[in-house]
Amino acid sequence: MEKIFNPTSILVVGVSEHPNNLAQNIVANLVDFGWDGDLYLFGKQAGTYLGYPIHTEMGALPDSIELAVMLIPAASIPSLMYSCIEKKIFRMVIESGGFSEFSAAGQALEEEIKALAEKHKVRFVGPNGISIINRHNGLCLPFMRLSPAEIVPGGLSVISQSGGLALTYIGLGCRENLGVAKIISMGNKSNLDEVDYLNFLADDEETKVIGLYLESMDKGRAFIDALKNCKKPVILHKSNTSPQSQVIAQSHTAALAVDDEVVDAACRQAGVFRVHSFGQFINYAKAFSLPAMRGDNLMVISRSGGHAVVAADAAADAGFKLPGLSEDFIARISSQFRASVIKLTNPLDLGDIFDIDYYVTILEMALERDDVDGVVLNHVFQAESEFAATLRLAQKVESLIARHNKPVTLVLFSSISAVSQVMAEISIPIFSEPLIALEALSVSRERSLNRSAAVIPDTPLPLVGKSAASPLFDEWLQDASRRDKTLFADQALTILQEYGLSVPSRTSMIRTFVSPSRAMFTGGSHLRAMSWT
Amino acid sequence: MEKIFNPTSILVVGVSEHPNNLAQNIVANLVDFGWDGDLYLFGKQAGTYLGYPIHTEMGALPDSIELAVMLIPAASIPSLMYSCIEKKIFRMVIESGGFSEFSAAGQALEEEIKALAEKHKVRFVGPNGISIINRHNGLCLPFMRLSPAEIVPGGLSVISQSGGLALTYIGLGCRENLGVAKIISMGNKSNLDEVDYLNFLADDEETKVIGLYLESMDKGRAFIDALKNCKKPVILHKSNTSPQSQVIAQSHTAALAVDDEVVDAACRQAGVFRVHSFGQFINYAKAFSLPAMRGDNLMVISRSGGHAVVAADAAADAGFKLPGLSEDFIARISSQFRASVIKLTNPLDLGDIFDIDYYVTILEMALERDDVDGVVLNHVFQAESEFAATLRLAQKVESLIARHNKPVTLVLFSSISAVSQVMAEISIPIFSEPLIALEALSVSRERSLNRSAAVIPDTPLPLVGKSAASPLFDEWLQDASRRDKTLFADQALTILQEYGLSVPSRTSMIRTFVSPSRAMFTGGSHLRAMSWT
Repeated sequence: MEKIFNPTSILVVGVSEHPNNLAQNIVANLVDFGWDGDLYLFGKQAGTYLGYPIHTEMGALPDSIELAVMLIPAASIPSLMYSCIEKKIFRMVIESGGFSEFSAAGQALEEEIKALAEKHKVRFVGPNGISIINRHNGLCLPFMRLSPAEIVPGGLSVISQSGGLALTYIGLGCRENLGVAKIISMGNKSNLDEVDYLNFLADDEETKVIGLYLESMDKGRAFIDALKNCKKPVILHKSNTSPQSQVIAQSHTAALAVDDEVVDAACRQAGVFRVHSFGQFINYAKAFSLPAMRGDNLMVISRSGGHAVVAADAAADAGFKLPGLSEDFIARISSQFRASVIKLTNPLDLGDIFDIDYYVTILEMALERDDVDGVVLNHVFQAESEFAATLRLAQKVESLIARHNKPVTLVLFSSISAVSQVMAEISIPIFSEPLIALEALSVSRERSLNRSAAVIPDTPLPLVGKSAASPLFDEWLQDASRRDKTLFADQALTILQEYGLSVPSRTSMIRTFVSPSRAMFTGGSHLRAMSWT
Repeated sequence: MEKIFNPTSILVVGVSEHPNNLAQNIVANLVDFGWDGDLYLFGKQAGTYLGYPIHTEMGALPDSIELAVMLIPAASIPSLMYSCIEKKIFRMVIESGGFSEFSAAGQALEEEIKALAEKHKVRFVGPNGISIINRHNGLCLPFMRLSPAEIVPGGLSVISQSGGLALTYIGLGCRENLGVAKIISMGNKSNLDEVDYLNFLADDEETKVIGLYLESMDKGRAFIDALKNCKKPVILHKSNTSPQSQVIAQSHTAALAVDDEVVDAACRQAGVFRVHSFGQFINYAKAFSLPAMRGDNLMVISRSGGHAVVAADAAADAGFKLPGLSEDFIARISSQFRASVIKLTNPLDLGDIFDIDYYVTILEMALERDDVDGVVLNHVFQAESEFAATLRLAQKVESLIARHNKPVTLVLFSSISAVSQVMAEISIPIFSEPLIALEALSVSRERSLNRSAAVIPDTPLPLVGKSAASPLFDEWLQDASRRDKTLFADQALTILQEYGLSVPSRTSMIRTFVSPSRAMFTGGSHLRAMSWT
């Protein structure tokens, strides 16, 4: 694997001088990203590209090139592999499509290259993927042109069963100030697969957070073992869960669906964070790029009272506590509150402080407190007149996070361009709203405390035993007209509660059912039908 | 209300020449936004601002100015109101804070102005808010400087109990290509309240979608009636649901918490869409700005196979059907698929079509089909080399939506600046990922079909009566060590299922519990603990 991600010499096969030739992009990417090993091009017709000669005879190439990258029709891959083996090339990247994802003939070709690889101890990436990037050494092998300015180096590594999603996660990672380390588009993963890549990234120094996008999981046991052995945070986005998607997933990467419940069970076993959307994926990655949230105590600081209210709601829902302000704390900051029309509490409404620079003092005082494990800082600013002060604030937040080793989720509201400009000048993630910031702090807390954050009922009820009958249960069972109806979750919980069992609070359940995703699954009127009457 | 939003003359009270004077911003906003009525300024010291004289004697002003806007200390408001009444000014906007949200003395002042208003038939906005904007006539009264370039005219109107959230929703509405009609920051709503504003917006021609941010609901019955009478889509973001937020909400806008379950019940009665985050709020608003999704039949078109898989999963979760492609359809498009390495299905993977302009032909063919109610179009593009083609595509999508009166959710992946540039050239919303697009289509379908989309169990079980005991229930009840533990939802459902009741499917429950918001409430390991074993 080391030779695949850190080769000293590369052969690109499939290059021509034709303007539509896709393999040219591989060469151009290597040049643009500053990869500095020995580069050889190979094609059907002699020529040059970017000053490199295009060879047509294997004999003209040196032996033992460390990595061959192939983008030629599928049918020609087996013989090319064989030629490479003869030249003592045992590491390959096969980007071509047209294998098992496409047809029976393609499947036979794939079996052939698998067997060939096994026989000759070849390890290869692909086929049918956009392949790999090592952002820290300039190895950029996808067959579409990419820009080093847009793909900034960082700590997020992604293993993806889809090239499109690999690109999406690169884009999100860079946009969200994480930057990327290694990107792997596995394609049909007929030789190297998620287990191999995961084991490699687990020991990769540049990788801080690992993201996985999978459409199929073939090696359950080995995969779970690899996940368990990995000490870095792993985020799993597993799709291909519906009959509708299975048709296209099969065509896309030859993926066979796995029972979704098995995936959840695997995640549970391995301590992996499963997500169901791009937004959640990147939010978890942001969470893990900040210092860990090591407890329940949160301080909410907000320029707008409304954002303070929303943040406090989200904090309560996530089970955080907002410790009150000490008299000393209040005494130190109260002089800054001009007209004294705001009460000093946690959440702290800064609406009356016009000096943005003073926010830093308050933030530092908060971080110094032993009873504050992390801070949500909501800041609304005018795009032009308050840009400079906001940038100073953001830079101070970055240094305070490092100094105190506690997470601060900076939530910025302004024009999209003003927020982007602030982000370009700092290296910490920015959050778009309090709910998202609290999601990040919650998942960070879970990882750091390795805790199962069960829903705590508002008022735990004593167990009274089965003899305490449930009126709703009786009613339901005896009413013939209800027999073909679905029991709503709140009714289910009522019955259990009537039997004296301790269940999640109705409020928390109701909130659950009106979450964005839930709304999607059931539609709003159903949500309303589920709420308590 | 008409005189408040469409006054022909305005008096701004509290203006001075001092550089930190906030009331100046009100005047400057009116000038910048092009309000063209008669404008009078009033203050303690004579002077001028932006060429307008600052009056110091009420006697110098004409009678019957249609609207007085006040930004002076709370203690001076009652006497100012009285002076205005003497000048036959009966419509007022009170932006000052320091009333019931702050102290007992402030509360007494608020009672005083309420009584004064009642006695003299005065209607006023506020106090303690950033007040109102009518984007279509230049009436821009907030006391912070705002830019007409950033607040584009459109169809979203917002009634907010927080100025900060009003600004946030203005920003989101404009960023997401909706534009704004009327913005109302109600403040303490001690005279005009959400019922009055809602009734006004229900008949306002420029308002297409109404968003409400509330921290308290005082007039339950009248509010529900107003919601029921409103024929436009209404989105409700109700916060202040936790003990933690109630402290700050009380200080922020004198809001008293309402039982959250009452809010849900109210939504259910009135056909309102309740949301719990900014992202969900604006996504619903985007959904309602597209033509309605009138059925279950969806076509997914995607440049990346991975995005097609993710979109198909989300479509299935939302209960959409993906009708297969007809032979005629396949025959017409297959010639465009170059190397023929992709199967033609719905979802349709366009990965092999390099001519982006041809996407338009496929989209139009899809929209022409009677068995397609809407389309999700996922497009990944290179920020520079494919920008022009993508812009042409987006413009065609806009015209095809109008021509066919069906929703197309265009999901764009590229650099943030490239996507922003595309958005700036068109007037339809853009979506950031398939899950969000499907949420929008789902809520649109619900509104158009007025349908309660109940969760359908995968395999309905026959009711077998109470005699069929639940092993898990027995186990739980008899195990003393479990008595202080919370029953997980899946366990609750198992017990009910063991008793023969029909419950939501495990898969749909599990998906629910791993939704982004759910993850926030419980943390990932709990999610894992909840999944089926």
